[in-house]
Parts: sequence; structure tokens; C-alpha cells
Amino acid sequence: MNRQILTTLLTDLKNGTLSLEETVNRLSTFPAETLDNACLDHQRTLRTGIPEVIFGAGKTPEQIISIASAFLKQNTILLATRVNEEKAAIVTEALPSLTYYQEAHMLTCNEQRESPDNYRGYTAIISAGTSDIPVAEEARITLSTLGHPVKTLYDAGVAGLHRILNHSSLLSAAEVIIVAAGMEGALPSVIGGLVSRPVIAVPTSIGYGASFSGIAALLGMLNSCAPGVAVVNIDNGFGAACMAEAINRI
Amino acid sequence: MNRQILTTLLTDLKNGTLSLEETVNRLSTFPAETLDNACLDHQRTLRTGIPEVIFGAGKTPEQIISIASAFLKQNTILLATRVNEEKAAIVTEALPSLTYYQEAHMLTCNEQRESPDNYRGYTAIISAGTSDIPVAEEARITLSTLGHPVKTLYDAGVAGLHRILNHSSLLSAAEVIIVAAGMEGALPSVIGGLVSRPVIAVPTSIGYGASFSGIAALLGMLNSCAPGVAVVNIDNGFGAACMAEAINRI
Amino acid sequence: MNRQILTTLLTDLKNGTLSLEETVNRLSTFPAETLDNACLDHQRTLRTGIPEVIFGAGKTPEQIISIASAFLKQNTILLATRVNEEKAAIVTEALPSLTYYQEAHMLTCNEQRESPDNYRGYTAIISAGTSDIPVAEEARITLSTLGHPVKTLYDAGVAGLHRILNHSSLLSAAEVIIVAAGMEGALPSVIGGLVSRPVIAVPTSIGYGASFSGIAALLGMLNSCAPGVAVVNIDNGFGAACMAEAINRI
Amino acid sequence: MNRQILTTLLTDLKNGTLSLEETVNRLSTFPAETLDNACLDHQRTLRTGIPEVIFGAGKTPEQIISIASAFLKQNTILLATRVNEEKAAIVTEALPSLTYYQEAHMLTCNEQRESPDNYRGYTAIISAGTSDIPVAEEARITLSTLGHPVKTLYDAGVAGLHRILNHSSLLSAAEVIIVAAGMEGALPSVIGGLVSRPVIAVPTSIGYGASFSGIAALLGMLNSCAPGVAVVNIDNGFGAACMAEAINRI
Amino acid sequence: MNRQILTTLLTDLKNGTLSLEETVNRLSTFPAETLDNACLDHQRTLRTGIPEVIFGAGKTPEQIISIASAFLKQNTILLATRVNEEKAAIVTEALPSLTYYQEAHMLTCNEQRESPDNYRGYTAIISAGTSDIPVAEEARITLSTLGHPVKTLYDAGVAGLHRILNHSSLLSAAEVIIVAAGMEGALPSVIGGLVSRPVIAVPTSIGYGASFSGIAALLGMLNSCAPGVAVVNIDNGFGAACMAEAINRI
Amino acid sequence: MNRQILTTLLTDLKNGTLSLEETVNRLSTFPAETLDNACLDHQRTLRTGIPEVIFGAGKTPEQIISIASAFLKQNTILLATRVNEEKAAIVTEALPSLTYYQEAHMLTCNEQRESPDNYRGYTAIISAGTSDIPVAEEARITLSTLGHPVKTLYDAGVAGLHRILNHSSLLSAAEVIIVAAGMEGALPSVIGGLVSRPVIAVPTSIGYGASFSGIAALLGMLNSCAPGVAVVNIDNGFGAACMAEAINRI
Amino acid sequence: MNRQILTTLLTDLKNGTLSLEETVNRLSTFPAETLDNACLDHQRTLRTGIPEVIFGAGKTPEQIISIASAFLKQNTILLATRVNEEKAAIVTEALPSLTYYQEAHMLTCNEQRESPDNYRGYTAIISAGTSDIPVAEEARITLSTLGHPVKTLYDAGVAGLHRILNHSSLLSAAEVIIVAAGMEGALPSVIGGLVSRPVIAVPTSIGYGASFSGIAALLGMLNSCAPGVAVVNIDNGFGAACMAEAINRI
Amino acid sequence: MNRQILTTLLTDLKNGTLSLEETVNRLSTFPAETLDNACLDHQRTLRTGIPEVIFGAGKTPEQIISIASAFLKQNTILLATRVNEEKAAIVTEALPSLTYYQEAHMLTCNEQRESPDNYRGYTAIISAGTSDIPVAEEARITLSTLGHPVKTLYDAGVAGLHRILNHSSLLSAAEVIIVAAGMEGALPSVIGGLVSRPVIAVPTSIGYGASFSGIAALLGMLNSCAPGVAVVNIDNGFGAACMAEAINRI
Repeated sequence: MNRQILTTLLTDLKNGTLSLEETVNRLSTFPAETLDNACLDHQRTLRTGIPEVIFGAGKTPEQIISIASAFLKQNTILLATRVNEEKAAIVTEALPSLTYYQEAHMLTCNEQRESPDNYRGYTAIISAGTSDIPVAEEARITLSTLGHPVKTLYDAGVAGLHRILNHSSLLSAAEVIIVAAGMEGALPSVIGGLVSRPVIAVPTSIGYGASFSGIAALLGMLNSCAPGVAVVNIDNGFGAACMAEAINRI
Repeated sequence: MNRQILTTLLTDLKNGTLSLEETVNRLSTFPAETLDNACLDHQRTLRTGIPEVIFGAGKTPEQIISIASAFLKQNTILLATRVNEEKAAIVTEALPSLTYYQEAHMLTCNEQRESPDNYRGYTAIISAGTSDIPVAEEARITLSTLGHPVKTLYDAGVAGLHRILNHSSLLSAAEVIIVAAGMEGALPSVIGGLVSRPVIAVPTSIGYGASFSGIAALLGMLNSCAPGVAVVNIDNGFGAACMAEAINRI
Repeated sequence: MNRQILTTLLTDLKNGTLSLEETVNRLSTFPAETLDNACLDHQRTLRTGIPEVIFGAGKTPEQIISIASAFLKQNTILLATRVNEEKAAIVTEALPSLTYYQEAHMLTCNEQRESPDNYRGYTAIISAGTSDIPVAEEARITLSTLGHPVKTLYDAGVAGLHRILNHSSLLSAAEVIIVAAGMEGALPSVIGGLVSRPVIAVPTSIGYGASFSGIAALLGMLNSCAPGVAVVNIDNGFGAACMAEAINRI
Repeated sequence: MNRQILTTLLTDLKNGTLSLEETVNRLSTFPAETLDNACLDHQRTLRTGIPEVIFGAGKTPEQIISIASAFLKQNTILLATRVNEEKAAIVTEALPSLTYYQEAHMLTCNEQRESPDNYRGYTAIISAGTSDIPVAEEARITLSTLGHPVKTLYDAGVAGLHRILNHSSLLSAAEVIIVAAGMEGALPSVIGGLVSRPVIAVPTSIGYGASFSGIAALLGMLNSCAPGVAVVNIDNGFGAACMAEAINRI
Repeated sequence: MNRQILTTLLTDLKNGTLSLEETVNRLSTFPAETLDNACLDHQRTLRTGIPEVIFGAGKTPEQIISIASAFLKQNTILLATRVNEEKAAIVTEALPSLTYYQEAHMLTCNEQRESPDNYRGYTAIISAGTSDIPVAEEARITLSTLGHPVKTLYDAGVAGLHRILNHSSLLSAAEVIIVAAGMEGALPSVIGGLVSRPVIAVPTSIGYGASFSGIAALLGMLNSCAPGVAVVNIDNGFGAACMAEAINRI
Repeated sequence: MNRQILTTLLTDLKNGTLSLEETVNRLSTFPAETLDNACLDHQRTLRTGIPEVIFGAGKTPEQIISIASAFLKQNTILLATRVNEEKAAIVTEALPSLTYYQEAHMLTCNEQRESPDNYRGYTAIISAGTSDIPVAEEARITLSTLGHPVKTLYDAGVAGLHRILNHSSLLSAAEVIIVAAGMEGALPSVIGGLVSRPVIAVPTSIGYGASFSGIAALLGMLNSCAPGVAVVNIDNGFGAACMAEAINRI
Repeated sequence: MNRQILTTLLTDLKNGTLSLEETVNRLSTFPAETLDNACLDHQRTLRTGIPEVIFGAGKTPEQIISIASAFLKQNTILLATRVNEEKAAIVTEALPSLTYYQEAHMLTCNEQRESPDNYRGYTAIISAGTSDIPVAEEARITLSTLGHPVKTLYDAGVAGLHRILNHSSLLSAAEVIIVAAGMEGALPSVIGGLVSRPVIAVPTSIGYGASFSGIAALLGMLNSCAPGVAVVNIDNGFGAACMAEAINRI
Repeated sequence: MNRQILTTLLTDLKNGTLSLEETVNRLSTFPAETLDNACLDHQRTLRTGIPEVIFGAGKTPEQIISIASAFLKQNTILLATRVNEEKAAIVTEALPSLTYYQEAHMLTCNEQRESPDNYRGYTAIISAGTSDIPVAEEARITLSTLGHPVKTLYDAGVAGLHRILNHSSLLSAAEVIIVAAGMEGALPSVIGGLVSRPVIAVPTSIGYGASFSGIAALLGMLNSCAPGVAVVNIDNGFGAACMAEAINRI
């Protein structure tokens, strides 16, 4: 409820077009509406393209079906993350219009077409190893479902620098770069030293022993000596995509 | 050394303008130059506005003076971080053209004028408490030295939500938002839930006991349930500024 | 056994009303009785309404049946926590009078009616997300089984502040507030900043990566910058209910 | 701004007593005011007795003097925590009306008289050892400055149980119990097993080696097997006092 | 091989009773024998009663059968720890002379009779809760298999002090006390404050959330403020028994 | 106060030998005395030889002087640990009868003569390196002040096994062995594999980097694969001495 | 592309043998080629004998089959690590020429014969316990597949020093020593103190409780007080073998 | 004492050349001698060139002077590490023949000349940043004092890859490579991916916040995805040098 709407409302009251009681009622929801304004992810979503997202990890298939059905009725983009194969089978049987991406563990529906006009450029998604691809794919599916242009380069870790250097144009032409890496998580530092674009580093839980399920990669990325690197949670491809969307969306 | 320079060089060789030996010599530094291309932070700096930065924490005043002098000869922007007062006194006595920012623990020289045309908008810098201000100031001085437009809102923590909500227009009009917070580090989540701009969260080491010198805030920010939040190292105001510069620079 | 009782007892001995042997016997249990006084959880339980509780996590169904049967004979309130579905099926087949709450993983029997007269007011139980509900339910079932008045507000996390602000009257009218939250665990700080009632914060293990099974939420809550917040163990809805009972019981 | 105020405002507009512009202006601060309502710690403070508090740890003496002066002008209770002796000397020289409590590291002014009528009873503050007394004193000074009735029992650790058992009446007659303990932090468990009152456990950083500056005590308290125990941050005597105030204040 | 045996050996050589070659052979195993002296757990075992022990956790049933068979041929005491039920079924089918203790997860054979004459007294084994009993049982089976006199007191945690105080004579008459406790692990401190006997504290992994699989109990015990307490690894009932054997064996 | 004493007391009352008032007085301290029984470290101290100990780390010189003076009046053994040189200078100036052991950071008074008849044998104290000697000395001074026979072997770490093996008789003839080691803390495992005596392992904070102030040594000792090893807190030479006293005292 | 090749290329250009465009093209791939030079693990592999390795942990059997097939076509040595039995069964059914080593969890093909001439000597692989053998075997299979001479000594932990001392010649004659140990991880320190050869320490995850899945062993090894010890990741037998290969290969 | 020496000894006994008593005496020191053989670091030192080293961190200047004097009498190489400037001033005043290296915090004496014939090649020492130089220097001084050929390349971190790539010949021609790096510690991975020589990675404590005094770098290096990398303790330049010496010494 911006100033203009408020002025109209009060003018209506003054003019008698609106009763005092009705005006009070509507204004007494004003704080709520203001806050709805702030949090009405629903409306903001439709405007900015970031849909409501179902965090599938702690939910039963039935709960996912129920929430997804509500979304489908509104015809909004549907994104569900961390849905394992078993759950996905049950959900997609009930809701056949949903697409399941096995590697990304995601369910989507009502995907947007790629809409370059809404973005400053494309987001490059890099994975250090093949094992990091599921996290990279979570970012990719999230973005492409929103219509966000994406290019990918997978399996380009620091132990073979030529792989990343050979594709430096892919990196330097990107608007945003997402880098998913496990183990020592050094790739964002190397890329951050090569290009001037914002790098969103996603530590993955790939590794063993002293990788501590991604802590080694997380710490490595937080301590990156290269400028222009920021970090999201371990395995949080979805979060990286949200940050890229926030940066890249016009 | 781009394709054009290379063509010229070889044409010169072909034409006899350049001796074979000289060409070999110059090309034998080609990988270096190519790599300089990749890493020539120097050239890239001049182009993107991110200067070489002196990390003052592990250096003696003499080392800082020596490096800073080299920078001053090139007339480039000079930024030194984590320079305590004692060191700063020695350095500024030797190099009086440097400015010392006591709260940010920074030395600068050859600051740029604010140059809005180079940026998509301004960066909003928010601190949760007054104790977080030094970290916020490290970000602010870094950005303003580069000519990056900045607005600040300090002491606006979650325990008094009205403080942040009263300035929601400052947030929603920003291109990028940097949020410095210690203790539980909840402010980026709240702001991330209110606006659609990219939020760069900076955990600070403010707190005691189970804040573990910023770990509590760091973990809180990494686990933010709000979209569009990415995190830099504890107390790394400079790193947040670099990320903001990478995002906001046209 | 205070000084007065002791004087009477010894006077009785001196007067011959009490035999030497009997006095010795009673006094020789004196330390024990004093300590029984202190620890007679049984008697205190009947008086204060906090029942003996079966911690089901490390017990076999047979052990649970055996202990529960002993309780049932005394007709006392029965509460068993952390009983998974598989165990519950075996136990309830053997003891059909028990009720199983699947979401809370609890078994109860001999529940009390809600008895507002015994309490200063009601306890509000808030969950930040839907995934935190099982922990909130553990608190709710514990309290309602004791007859403690409870109101709930689920899925009201900080990323959508209006949800909590819209229900501020529910919060401000409560005598005690229990807040269950995972991930960054910021909700207790926000609520603690809005109301003057004691807030019992329950970190949950909901999250992934750097949530470290609830450590992020735990640390966030311990470092809350809002006054009037205290914390119980991760996922300890039962413990939060005990604290609420201790505070709210007249 | 409640419904009544809103109705009056709008009636004034309708009656022409208030201009449209002025009404818009005042209503456009409505969300802010509503949130001020929620967070107006100032007003709530005056009402509930919890004053604004200066966290002295990260502040210079000059900053403390400046903030304290502002408080003194309002004649409100002044509490500053974590002010070391050196800072306190400077502050009290500038502001002689302030009282410095050396052991608690606190500065106060405008202390309230003890006002039993405002409380359900007294708060008992227990310290396990003599070294935990500064933390206990931070709680005591906070409460007594608010007028909150307090009784103390210091140096009553679990290695000599008789010390605590000899004072069981002090414990059982209290409305709230604060227990400060370092090292293994076992005292809250023992007290929680003896009485039915809410126990606020404060781990202290007293200890060495594997006490890890209070982590051992913190974990011990969070895992307490006794009911009715909740925990605040390490060394957070002030936070324990705030929780006690929230519980005990009528 | 002590000096006497060595003298005899060499006298035999000098006398010609032993050939040079045989003497060389036997002496060339001398360092080995010397070291065997140090490490000949075999011989020392027979002498001190501590048998070779099979750590079953990382072994296949086949490996356990193979090692156990070798032991059985020597008719020595056999102890295998951390053998789950599934493995035990296979092993005991192959080696029916072995006894399986389900709660302690142990296999034994050739148990010694209780032999009080070999010990200074009995070892008291206390468990804080019922869930700690398997760890306590690992200690008990280890000791009783060696013939070590043992008395037990299970489920006597600090939340009900009378349980432990009512059995103070069991404690004070013991030669050694083993205390197994999970969660906050406070029981050894309380017992260490009551008696002057050596207390071997065994943290257990019982608990959840911030018990961190026994870390909370471990830290609590290491920081015990009571004298005469030493600690073994989490869940290491066997290690506690070995320490008790070393102390108590005459 | 056992049953016999109680019977006598009451008989005296019945007989008129004791007045009612006096009996009440003595019995009204009964719970206290009973608990004194449990905790009367004072009486138990005189009996077992373990004196009250002053933990000097968190105390001012004035506090130490005050407590020590009280002890001196009772002519009991005085032990104060963790008293740095600066504090010690002040204390010994005020109380010249105290002896300061600089390396052990201890103050003592009224030391006992060595009294072999009260002990089963001697305690061997081993340090791995020279830097571990202060911790070993804290154990040695504690024991020798009590009259406990002690032998020492310092600087005998695992990197030079012959040092420890050359003194195997010192080890095997001991009743108890205390081993202080920092860095990797491997020495207790090696010694535990060589002898059948109880080994009390004391991790020290000696080391740097990944020694984490003694955590590496602590974990190494807790995981010792040798039988008969138990562990005390990091740098806790005093605690090791208490355990040795509890084991070795007849 | 060394100086000679570069000279030839440019001479060709000068001579007209090569067109300007072609020279530019080839030189513009120069950085790539240089980097290929640096990273051409393929060529370097063939030269040094270290094959491309498949990290099986995060891959499906299908992915392993696909990658392995590509390798088999090139007839290179094939090594796949961390392939569990289930996956191995599927892979070896599809690719029968592969050998599966169950204990080492490895698949190999095209193994090299042992080629002592390529090495300075043999690598000794020691395991502390039988449970550490799988990690030791990962190192052994890796090395022997490369043709690297290896000798092994398994189950030679510090609790029985004679086992290692009896085989000191095996150690002292080795060129490199790999030591795999779990629990307290003390064996590398002991061996490092006995011989002058480089010791590669491999912590294993064998242990329980405070071994924290290998952290105790890892820290112990990093803090080794013996010279000539370096450490690889927990359970990383393969990494230890790579280090040994790098050291020992002529 | 090998088999031959033993045969001679016994033959002498048999022949009467050696008395029985003398033979017994010599053989009874046999284990000791064997172990001396194993641990005689002194002799082995003279032979291999690794001197006894004084760990200066926990020692007083007086202790260092005393130990150093003993070394000087033997005319052996003297190395003392972690000697701060203040201590060094006192020591060098007493022992003027010692040289102090301020950046490496080392004292040396009787340095060896560089002796390439004793080594397979040179060791390259790389530091990622200028702040890592002190650690690199500790390695360099250690090696050069032993006569070990060394080349250095300082300030060549991953954020500017060209710096390291420009010196690839320095790396590829080295026999061993030591890499000191703080912050994210990524440099060893990059170098390990470029060359086939053994890389000894030294994490440094350089950094702040989530570098956790070198933990981030340590974990990064342990998880290196490049082959041929092993790790020493944080800041342990000396340990890296010992490993290099063990590898490189002929």
C-alpha cells in the first residue's frame, strides 16, 4: 500500500465514497498489509519471478502433494527442493504435471521460458568435480525454471587448471558466476582471481575424512583471498541461485 | 596481450621491423603475459576500479610504508586494511598524504570522487549494533574510496524491528545491501525477507561466550531462511565491499 | 523435618511417648528423609503435576511396556517421549489405553483436563517453520497432558515478519512463550524484542549443511540480543514444556 | 496506534479538522508507529522496569559517557555491563552520579528501591564457586537496580552437596532461581532435581583446559536431566536477570 | 628373560650343554623377548588376568571366529567387545562354547571364578540412568570374567540425589568406583565429592542434541571439581574395567 | 554420625546426661553433619590427607591471603595451585611461612613428611618433554606435600623410546604412574603397553597449531589402545595427583 | 611449447612457410597449450606412472562403467577407489577385465608389473591394527598397480612395541614408510623416532567416542614430535600412495 | 647388535676370551643398546645431518642458554626454533657465536655449508603471501643450516596465478616443494596439479575470522584434490624442512 493508494483511500473517505467503518477496517489491516508488502512473497514472487519454494527434506510425500496442489491452483511456478526419488515417485504419480529432476532432487512445474530481456546477462555455473554436479544442478534448475539464462561448465577443478583457463571467456562474459566445489573448495579463489564478476561460492559436502561434510570447503571459501566472492550454505545450490537472481534480475 | 597486439607483433616480425630474437623474447613471456591477462590485477584494477589492497594485519609499519610508497608512485588508489592506530601513526608520519580512518582501521590515498554513473545504484550498509560499526565502516571506506555511492543505517538490530522497518525505503531503493551483525546475526534474514535486493551478510566478532568470536553470527547467516543472502568472512567488511563492487559496477 | 518437628520428636522420646528404638529408626532415616524430601519426585510430581517421564529413545518396546505398566497401576499421568512409530505400535498393542501422538513421537495416558485455575495464564507455542512442528508438538502434548492451557502459532518464521506481527496479541497475552526454530534460529530474538514475557527458545535440528543439526540455531538463541530469552537443548520440546510449567504453575 | 486512535484520526479527517495531507503523513508513519508500538523499548521499559542497557565491552569511555548522559537526562534507570575498571574510572569521573560495581563490572544510576509488591517473590542467585561470583553479581546488580527482590547463596558447588542442601529452604521459597557455575556446570541439574521452581542456568567461563572457556558448563546445562532448567549464554548474568525479571514481574 | 635365566643360558653354552647355534638363535630373539617381556601381553595376561581382547567393531564374523578359535586353543580367557547381535549369532553358532551378553555386546569364554583374594576389594559400578546400563555392563562383564569382585547400582542419576545417597555405604566400602553417565555427566562429580575412593568416569553417548554423542558428558567429567576422578573414552566400559583391574589387583 | 553415635546421643538425652536443648542443637546440625559426612572435606581431609586446595587462577592476591590465613590458623596442609609469580610475591610477603614453587605455580605450607607407611608404594611421575615439567611438578608438589612417595622421570618422550625403556624398572616398580605429555600425547599409550600399573594420563597444553592447546594430546590419551589408562583435564597435574592419592593411599 | 618450438614456429612465419593467420591462431592457443603442458595429467600420467583415478564414492555404477570404459580404450592403468561391493559387482559384470579388491574397495585394470628399476627402493606400509588394514591396502593396491615395490607389516601398534621393533630392518631399509593408524594415532611418532626415512602418516577413522572418526589420530599425527612425518587426509590410503610415488619414483 | 656381533661375542665367551660375567653384563644391556640403536638420535643425527633442535617456545632464556651451551661443546649444528626477539637478545648476549634470524624466530650455530652432493636436488620453498614468509623462512633456515640446497619463491598466491605459472620451471626442477599458505590454503592444490614432485604443505595461521588460526588452511590442504601432497602442523616450517630433508638426503 503505497502513498498513492493511501491518498486515494482517504480521498474516498473524505468524499464519502467509502464509509468510515470500511476505511478503519482497511487501514486497521494496514500494518499487516505493509508487512504483507514486505513479506507477501506471493505478490513479490509474481513480480520478481522468485516462486514459493517447498523445502522437501522434512516433509512427507503427502505434505508435498498438498502444498504443491495449492500452488498448482494458482498456476504459479512450482519449485520443490531436496525431494528424494522415493518421495518424487509418489508425488508425481499424484501430480503428473510435475517434472522430477533426479540429479538435482527437484520437482518443478509451470517453468518459465528463458527470458534474457529480464536479466543483465547469463549466470555461469561451474562445478569443480563431477560429484559436485547435483548441487550445481539444483542451482541450474532453479534459475532455468525462473527463465534466468544459464551456462554451465562442469568438472573443472583446480588440480587441472587448464580446464578452467580454457573457458575463461565463458567466465568473463557472465554476469554472475556460481561455483560449486567440495573437498578443499579452492576453485572460487582461483576464479575470483581471474575475473571481475561476482562469484557465489557453494561449498559441497563432497569429500571424506577431514572434509567434515563440507566444512573444509566452506572455510576455504570464506577465507578466499580473491575479491568478489561470497558464500552460501553447504550444498545450497538453491540459495546460490536466489542470490544470482537477486543480482542479475533487472 | 590481446589478439590485436599479437597480430601487430607478428606483422612487425614478418616485416622485419622486429628481429626474430626480440620477438621470441617477447613471446616467450607470452604465457606470463597471458596469465598476466588473467591475473593482471594491476590492469584490471585500473579498469574496474578495485585497487591493490594492503592487508596490514601481519605487516610492520616499515613494510606498509614501503609497499604504500610503491603504490603512491603509480598514483593509484591506495587502500590498507587492518592497520591499528599505532602502526598508522608511524605510517602517516612517513607518508603524510595518507588518510587514516580510526574506526575502520584503514589507510587510504588517491580516493575517487563518488561516481554514480559507474554504478547501477547505491549500496546500503546496515549495522545491527553500534559495536558492529567498525566492520561496516571498513566496507564503507572501501566503497567510497572507489567512488561507489553508499548510504548507511547503523544500529538497527532485530531486537527493535521498527528501526529497520522505518527505513524500508532506504533498503528497497538500494542496488545492493551489506549487513554487518554480530551476536546471533539475525538481521540479514530479516532484511532478506523484506526486500528483493542481494544481501551481503558480514558476521562480526561482536559478542561473548557462545558467540565464539563470530561463529554464531556466521552460522546464523549461512543458514538464513531468506532468499538472496550470501556471506563473507567474519569481520570482513572489505570483502563485502568487493562483492558489492562486483555486483554494482556497470 | 524442621527444628519444631525435631523438638517434638525428642520431647516424645524424653517423655517416653516414643521408644528409643523407634526414635533411632526415624532419625536414622532422617538424612534419607531429608534427601527423600528433596528428591521424592514421586510425591512432588503428584503435587505439582509434573509426571515421571519415560525417555523412549534408548529403550526397547518391552522396557517401555514394563515401565508404563508400573505407572498405569498408580493411575498417574504417563508421558513417554521419543517413541518412534514402530515401537509405539508394539507398546500400544500391549497397552491399548495409551494414546500415541505420531508427530510428537509421544505416548500418553491419564491426561489431565485443561485446568486454567492452576495456571497464571496460557503458554503460547510458536514454530518458525512447518518442519519445526514436531518439536513444538512435543511441548504442546506435554503441557496439555498436564492440563496446562496452550495456544499455538505454527510456521511464522522471520522471513515473513507479518505472520508473527499479525498475531502479536496472541504473544503479548501469553504468560510464557515457547519458540521452536531451526536453521538460523532468529525467531526468539524477534519475539523477545516484541513482548515482555519470558521466551523459552528451543533450537531444532531442522536444516542442513552449516546448521550442524541445530548448532547454528542453538548458538543464535544463546546469543540473542533480546532480553528475556533462555534456551533448552536442541529438539527438547519436552524440556521447554517443563520450564513453562515451572514458570506458569501457580 | 490502536483502533480508537485510528477512528479519531479518520473522524478528524472526515470532519475537516485534519487536512488530507496531514492525515496521509501521519498514516504513512503508521507502520512505523505500529512497529514502534512493538519495539518501543523505551516506553515498554518505563512500564516494565527493564531499562535500556549499555553493553560496555566494545565501547570507548567517551561513547559510554555520551550514551549515559542521554539516559541521565531522561532520569531513567541506567545500567551498563562489562565496563572494566579502567573505563569505569574515566566514566565516573565525568559522571559522578554513577555507581561502579567492581566485581560485576557494572555502572548504574537511578536504581529503584526494592519493590516486593511488583514481584511474585524473590529470585535466588546461587554460585557454584567463588570464582563464579562476578557473573552472579552481574545478575544481582541488574535485578536489585530494578527493585527486584534477591537473595544470594555463593560458593555452593556439587563437590560439597551439604552446602546446597543446608539451604534448601532458600531455594524452595524462591520464585525463580539463577545458578551460575563453571567447570562441569552440574549445579543446575542438582538444584533442578531438588525444587520445582524455574532454574535459569548461567554457564561461566571459569575453568581451564577442557572447560574451553565455558563450553563444558554450557553443554552440561543444556543436557541437564532435571526438569525446569533453561540456559543463557556463557557469563551472561545480565541475561539471566532479564529472564528472571520477565518471569517474576507481576 | 631375566638375569638369572640369561646366566643359566650362557653357563649352558659355556658348559657345552647348549650349542653355539642354538644359543645364538635363542639370544637373537632376545630383543624380541625383552620386548616380549614388555609387551608379552600373553604372558602378562596369564599372570595379571587381563586377557587379550578382540575389538569386534571393525571385524567380520569370520575374522572374530578365526581369532577366537586361536584363543580357545590356548584355553585363555576370551573377551570380545562391541559384537552386535547379528555377528554374535554367527560366531556363537560356529563356537558354541562362547557366551553372548546382549546388553553389553560382548562374547566371553573361559570366565574366571570370582577370586576376592586377588583383589583389594570390590569395584562398584554405578550408572546414572537406565540407558547407560549397556556401558556399565561392558565394564561389569569384563571384570567378572576376570574374577574381579563387582557390585552394581544402576539408575542413580543426579536429578534424584537420594538414590545415590541412600547407597553411600556401597560407595564408601568399594575399592574403586566406576561411574557411567551420559547427558550432562554430573554423577562422577557428585560421587567424587562424597567418597575418597578413586572414581573412574565413563561418559556415555546417551542423550541428544547438544550432548553431541557424549561430548557434553566427557567435558563435564574432565572438568569435575571433585578430587580423585579420572576419565576414559566415551562408552568405554571396557577401558574403565581395565583401569579398575590395574588399581584393584593385588 | 553413624547409628552407634546416634544411639549414644539419644540414650544420653533419655538418661538426662544431655539436655534437650543441646541434643536438639546437635541433631539440628545432623542433616548438615550427615552431609558434612559426605562433604566435610575438612574432616575427611585430616583423615585421608587431601587438604583443602585454593584454586588461585581466578583470585586476587588479597583473596588468596585471606583464605590461606584461615587455613594457617587451623594448622592444616595448605596447597594453592595456579598462582603466578606476581601474585605469589604479594602473598608470600604477607604470609612468609608459605613456600612458592615457581615452576609448579604453587604455594604450600605445613607440608607432610614423606610417609611410606601410609602408601602402597610410590607414584612415578613421567614427563614427555621438558616443557611438560611444570604440569608434572604440580602433581609432584601436591603429592610430596601430602607425604606421598614420588619418583620422577622427566623428558622421556616417544621420539626417543630408549629413554623410557632404559627406565622400565622405575615404571614397573611403581604403584601408580602419572604421565604428562603435550603435542600428540602418545607416551601414556606406550607406557600403558609396557607395564600393568594404572596410568593416569595428563594432557598438557604444550604444542602449537593443531595441538589446539592440548586437545590433540587429550584426544590421543582418551583413545589410547593400551589398557589401564585414564585421563584428567588438560594441564591438571593437581587432579592427577588426587587420583594417585586415592589409588595409592592405604 | 618450449623456446625451440617457438623459434621454429616464428622462423616458419618469417620464411613464409606459415601464414600470419595460422601463426596467430597457434600462438593464441599458446597459453592454453602452456597450461595443457602444466595440467596435461594425461601425458604426465603416462610419463610418471600415476594414472587417472576414479573417485567411486559419489558415482553410480553406470558412471563408473562409462568412465572406466573410456580408460580401457586407451589401455592405461585403471584405478578406482571407494567402490563398495555392491557397485563393484555391477561394474565387474559389465567390465570383466577389472579386478576388485574387496578390502581396499578398489577396482583396477592394466596393472603394471613391479618395476624396481623405476624406484629408489621399496615403500613399507605399516598398519597399527587389523582394523586399519583396509586403508593400508588402498595404499598397497595403488602402489603395486603402478609397479611400485612394496612391503607390508600389519597390526603393529604401539601397545606392543616389540612388534614394530622386531621389524626395524624392514623399516630402516625402506625408501619411504606409510603408516596407517586410528585411535590415538601414535605409531607414526614412534616410527619417526626410530628411522630417518620420510614417514607418511595416514590417520584412519577406526575408533569410537572421542576418536571422532579419525580426528584424534589426525591431530596426533600433525603434532608428532618426531621429525620427518607428514600427514594425509583421514582414511586416504590412496593419497599416501601418491605421495610415496612422488618421493620414490626416479 | 646384529647376528654377527652376537656370534662373535658368544664365541668369545665359549672360547674363554670373555668372562661369563662380562658377557652377561653386555648382553643384559642388549635391549638397551638395541633401543639405543633405534633411538640414538645423537649418533643418527651426526650421520644424517639432522641436529638436535631446541623448541624455544616453552623455555626461559636461561634454559635455552644452558642447552645451547651443551650443544656448542659438542660442536654440533645448533638449531633453536620459536625464539622471540626478547629471548634471543638475552641468549645471543650470553652466546655471541649464535646467529639470530628475526623473521624465522630461530637461533643457529655451526651451520653447514651448502652440500649439493648430499642431496638429490634442491628444495623449493613457496609462500602464498608475504605474511606467510616467517613460516617459509623457518623451513629455509633449517634446511640451509643443514647444508640442504634451497630455492625460494615468496608471495605467489592463487589469486594471481601468473606468479606461480611464471616460475613453473623452478617448481618442476625441484626435488621437493614446500608450500606455506594461510587463509584458504589453496596453493598446494594448484602446485600439486602442476608438477609431479612431492609437495609438503604447511598451513599458516595467517588470516582472521573463519580462518580459525590456520584450521581453514589445514583442512584445505588435507582435502587437496591434487596427488602428491602431504601436510604438516600449522606454522610448522621446521617440520616441513625435516620431511624435505628425509626425502631429499641421499
